[in-house]
Amino acid sequence: MATLEDVLATLDASQAGALDRLFELVRIPSISAQPPHFLDCDRAADWLTAQLAELGFDARKEPTDGRPMVMASAKAKTRDAPHVLFYGHYDVQPADPLDLWKTPPFEPRLEGERIFGRGAADDKGQLMTFLEACRAFRANGGLPCHVSVLLEGEEETGSPSLPAFLAKHAKSLKADLLLVCDTNMWNAETPAITTMLRGLVFEEIVLKGPSRDLHSGLYGGPAINPIRVLAKILADLHDDKGVVTLPGFYDGVEELPEDIAAQWRELDFDPVKFLGEVGLSVPAGEAGRSVLEQLWSRPTCEINGIVGGYIEAGAKTVLPAQASAKISFRLVGRQDPARIQQALRAFVKARLPADVKVEFLGHGGSPAIGLPSRGEALKRARRALEEEWGKPAAVIGAGGSIPIVGSFKRELGMDALMVGFGLDDDAIHSPNEKYERRSFHKGARSWARILSALSQ
Amino acid sequence: MATLEDVLATLDASQAGALDRLFELVRIPSISAQPPHFLDCDRAADWLTAQLAELGFDARKEPTDGRPMVMASAKAKTRDAPHVLFYGHYDVQPADPLDLWKTPPFEPRLEGERIFGRGAADDKGQLMTFLEACRAFRANGGLPCHVSVLLEGEEETGSPSLPAFLAKHAKSLKADLLLVCDTNMWNAETPAITTMLRGLVFEEIVLKGPSRDLHSGLYGGPAINPIRVLAKILADLHDDKGVVTLPGFYDGVEELPEDIAAQWRELDFDPVKFLGEVGLSVPAGEAGRSVLEQLWSRPTCEINGIVGGYIEAGAKTVLPAQASAKISFRLVGRQDPARIQQALRAFVKARLPADVKVEFLGHGGSPAIGLPSRGEALKRARRALEEEWGKPAAVIGAGGSIPIVGSFKRELGMDALMVGFGLDDDAIHSPNEKYERRSFHKGARSWARILSALSQ
Repeated sequence: MATLEDVLATLDASQAGALDRLFELVRIPSISAQPPHFLDCDRAADWLTAQLAELGFDARKEPTDGRPMVMASAKAKTRDAPHVLFYGHYDVQPADPLDLWKTPPFEPRLEGERIFGRGAADDKGQLMTFLEACRAFRANGGLPCHVSVLLEGEEETGSPSLPAFLAKHAKSLKADLLLVCDTNMWNAETPAITTMLRGLVFEEIVLKGPSRDLHSGLYGGPAINPIRVLAKILADLHDDKGVVTLPGFYDGVEELPEDIAAQWRELDFDPVKFLGEVGLSVPAGEAGRSVLEQLWSRPTCEINGIVGGYIEAGAKTVLPAQASAKISFRLVGRQDPARIQQALRAFVKARLPADVKVEFLGHGGSPAIGLPSRGEALKRARRALEEEWGKPAAVIGAGGSIPIVGSFKRELGMDALMVGFGLDDDAIHSPNEKYERRSFHKGARSWARILSALSQ
Repeated sequence: MATLEDVLATLDASQAGALDRLFELVRIPSISAQPPHFLDCDRAADWLTAQLAELGFDARKEPTDGRPMVMASAKAKTRDAPHVLFYGHYDVQPADPLDLWKTPPFEPRLEGERIFGRGAADDKGQLMTFLEACRAFRANGGLPCHVSVLLEGEEETGSPSLPAFLAKHAKSLKADLLLVCDTNMWNAETPAITTMLRGLVFEEIVLKGPSRDLHSGLYGGPAINPIRVLAKILADLHDDKGVVTLPGFYDGVEELPEDIAAQWRELDFDPVKFLGEVGLSVPAGEAGRSVLEQLWSRPTCEINGIVGGYIEAGAKTVLPAQASAKISFRLVGRQDPARIQQALRAFVKARLPADVKVEFLGHGGSPAIGLPSRGEALKRARRALEEEWGKPAAVIGAGGSIPIVGSFKRELGMDALMVGFGLDDDAIHSPNEKYERRSFHKGARSWARILSALSQ
């Protein structure tokens, strides 16, 4: 009977073919944001359906109100093997601005050890690591786990069809564990498992004072200025230590478990370099917290935009009728988006002087996602990754949210194991996107090891 | 020898002719802001030069780097009469938006008791009140004062040529008193003399943080947000009582003299109505000050514009690289614009955290102007106005600045007597500008009385 070593040897021997297959997929300009490319999205879905069928999956293209999904499933060699669901997306970001690409975005090429092309990393390269692992198992007697696959074509446009699709196909999609390959390694040498994703509340506040714009010579003094009121409210949102002052804001925020904190302290992370790359030198978040804590395990309140009055060049002595700000909160732990939205609205209302009215425009919210950071699956995956890369996998957080993970949790009650092989300099969403050949090959080997470890 | 009563009778008898002359002037579209109308500005200057020559003035059109000035002088009947310089402007605002005019802006018409047309009030109607008074004196034996006249063609574009022109012609322009007819009555029944004009400092501050816009998921927390820093600085500019907190800001601000304060309290002014017309109900300036004080005799700090980050519709989780605000101060008394600009800059710099830099863009400044509010000329003018209107003239302030008055003070050392007959609803600078026929006629009678009173 074939061993894991045989599977890995197959992957090593089939690198040229794997690269050809990835290039075929990258050549399809499946840009989900641009209607002229909708047919290309269908072509990419067809290509993947055919690939999966070739690997012995029961595979089909499923329609949605938007771009189609690819659904596939294959049985393990043994009946009592665990069941995993792999998620990836075949759609890519637009390639603009085209003139900044050194070679055409949909003509993939290998340059040295790097694979260039739109989608080379995000997410075509990453999802193909998993399919190549499945291909190698098939060549060696079959899969160690029952494997379902769901490949989406609308991730880059906010996954509008995903929640309803998951609800509709809950029965056939539900598995023991969700595998997602859309994240990065810690660095080029260190693999990573992402377990903490911050949530988000986004709120716009519009303050209205006088019934029209006024001349500050004729009204300045007695007439209330909404910009001044707005500035005061925004200034009140943080205290001098960078702590958010909204009542109840920190409800549900827990201190980082000491084992995770210890692991983060040991990560090869240089806060000076991290901030220096964007022209900064001092962490500006809560006093006494490390940069990684501020970024991964602490909530924030940010003003993302503000506008009021005269904003063109030069001077105009206007007293504006209104002023507005866009405010977002990154959430962690069990912070409740609805309660935080309410707390903000109450906070603003409590600070309105006479004659100033407020309108709130909610732009949505989602809770933070904490994935198991010490369960059995994670332990096995960490060990598998360490065997492949020679270094322990970092268990890390992510400052942003990955909404699809929330959808799987809400619709199917499934936790995710987020493992990816991208690097910070892959330029996803930018010109000259690339994926390291090493990420592509060792990523496939990593999935082979993880599937094998999960089935033990 | 002719008496003042004869002069007033002449004005009463010549109203139809006076209106024809005003209509002739209003028909010339002398818009100083629009190059296609530069020749019209010359035509208006020529027309006025001819008018003044017809009234016995030594009149001429004087070139400047921009639109020409009209300069004229005429001797009084008696050698030892006082010498007054009258200032007005013949240029007008653009007439846009044209579709909001009920009849064409440069086809003046009388509708009931109202004269409609661009410039009907500002300043053609107002300046013609003075010329009609001179005309009536000429028909009755001559002027009671030596009279110089200076009519400008660039007032609506900021009077760029005026200071140099005043300096160059100082000797021939210098008189005992400047008369300006470019202000309003207190209300339709009550004449007014304006003696307090607030000054202005206008400053733009640009705060720069990260070297580029950042994603709040990837950097939110450790990266400083310039909008947050800006909001804090702006919030600090006022205390809870509406008092400006800049160190030294109130240096040179004096309490209103009790007699002026008493007169203001007696003015028929309804703060509820004043604020109600623009949708407000509570005076928002310094606590414990009346609306008129806040407007005329107290300095202010206003935020005229603010912008930073994402300001289009919807949500974008950006951490902006910069944020900026436009701030202006209305000045009173002897507040020094340069010192206040410096105080603001120091105030901002003292509040900058690490990694935030500031750029200041100065947009100019001018001190407040306090005209004599109890001198002999003012006393005589008040009495003359009361005789004409049957009510004591209000001695009032103005919330805005009238820069030309500062130019005469600086270049010629002359104080102004500001008397005008406009009403708040004249819609100057707006479509359907009008001037009350009563203002036009009784304005001319008022000037006849004032010139006569000054010569006693």
